[in-house]
Amino acid sequence: MRILGIDPGVATVGFAVLETGAGSQHLVTCGAITTPAGLRLSARLLQIEGDLHALIAQFSPDVMAVEELFFSKNVTTGIAVAHARGVILLAAEREGIPIFEYKPMQIKQAVTGYGGAEKRQVMEMTRRLLNLKETPRPDDAADAVAVALCHARSATSLLNRG
Amino acid sequence: MRILGIDPGVATVGFAVLETGAGSQHLVTCGAITTPAGLRLSARLLQIEGDLHALIAQFSPDVMAVEELFFSKNVTTGIAVAHARGVILLAAEREGIPIFEYKPMQIKQAVTGYGGAEKRQVMEMTRRLLNLKETPRPDDAADAVAVALCHARSATSLLNRG
Repeated sequence: MRILGIDPGVATVGFAVLETGAGSQHLVTCGAITTPAGLRLSARLLQIEGDLHALIAQFSPDVMAVEELFFSKNVTTGIAVAHARGVILLAAEREGIPIFEYKPMQIKQAVTGYGGAEKRQVMEMTRRLLNLKETPRPDDAADAVAVALCHARSATSLLNRG
Repeated sequence: MRILGIDPGVATVGFAVLETGAGSQHLVTCGAITTPAGLRLSARLLQIEGDLHALIAQFSPDVMAVEELFFSKNVTTGIAVAHARGVILLAAEREGIPIFEYKPMQIKQAVTGYGGAEKRQVMEMTRRLLNLKETPRPDDAADAVAVALCHARSATSLLNRG
């Protein structure tokens, strides 16, 4: 199964493509879509959608795993991110790619075994689980790897229940 | 100038097409795009985008006027509406339609002359200004008419300043 992990944002959308097999996971690629700060929101959304379509065309993911929004800090920023997240969900839906959504706590739990883990612990466990030399950069890409990994591990545990 | 007014939402997106000429305004059509409550968010977003494209193709608006989000009540509902609003902005941007955003208070001010006007006053003034027999139904359509009218009157006053 090929999982496209997405960490939504307006300035930066983290992405990761994770290939999973029998008991193994392989990070195919990861990175970030970035949009210029000076550009109007609607033009940034159009760029995000275009770049995401190009990613989907290039890597043909079977599913998309995306973080749910969590508003502890800034509602105004959160509103903008929700605009981008709408466009991201639309892009996947249009391509017929099933979407799985995970809360930050679920991602931490799935990757480290502890829902209250620190960000650095999540990144370090992600690196170790995927046998990477370094944690992916930027942080948005690392977050996208973590959500893809969360889906890989959650999907496995769902299978194991059966 | 032909203005597409939009009142964003997930379950219901109000729309209005307003034609403006020298000192006159004519409501071409108004109504609502609705999506089934049981449908997943991404599928509702895809339907909203498709219906909006069909509206744009049919009525060829010169500009889109859309309400800004205002969160006095429910952040969770607001997040969902922001997802839909992202898709709405995307649809206009893709078609090269200039987007104008108005706060609820600006709309009330432009239509009634008072930024703290009640919803019913806004609807009644909208009806009178456009010589309609009744206020448009549902309320989302009436709100879309009001934001289109707000843009018509704001654009006029901008011209008058010159």
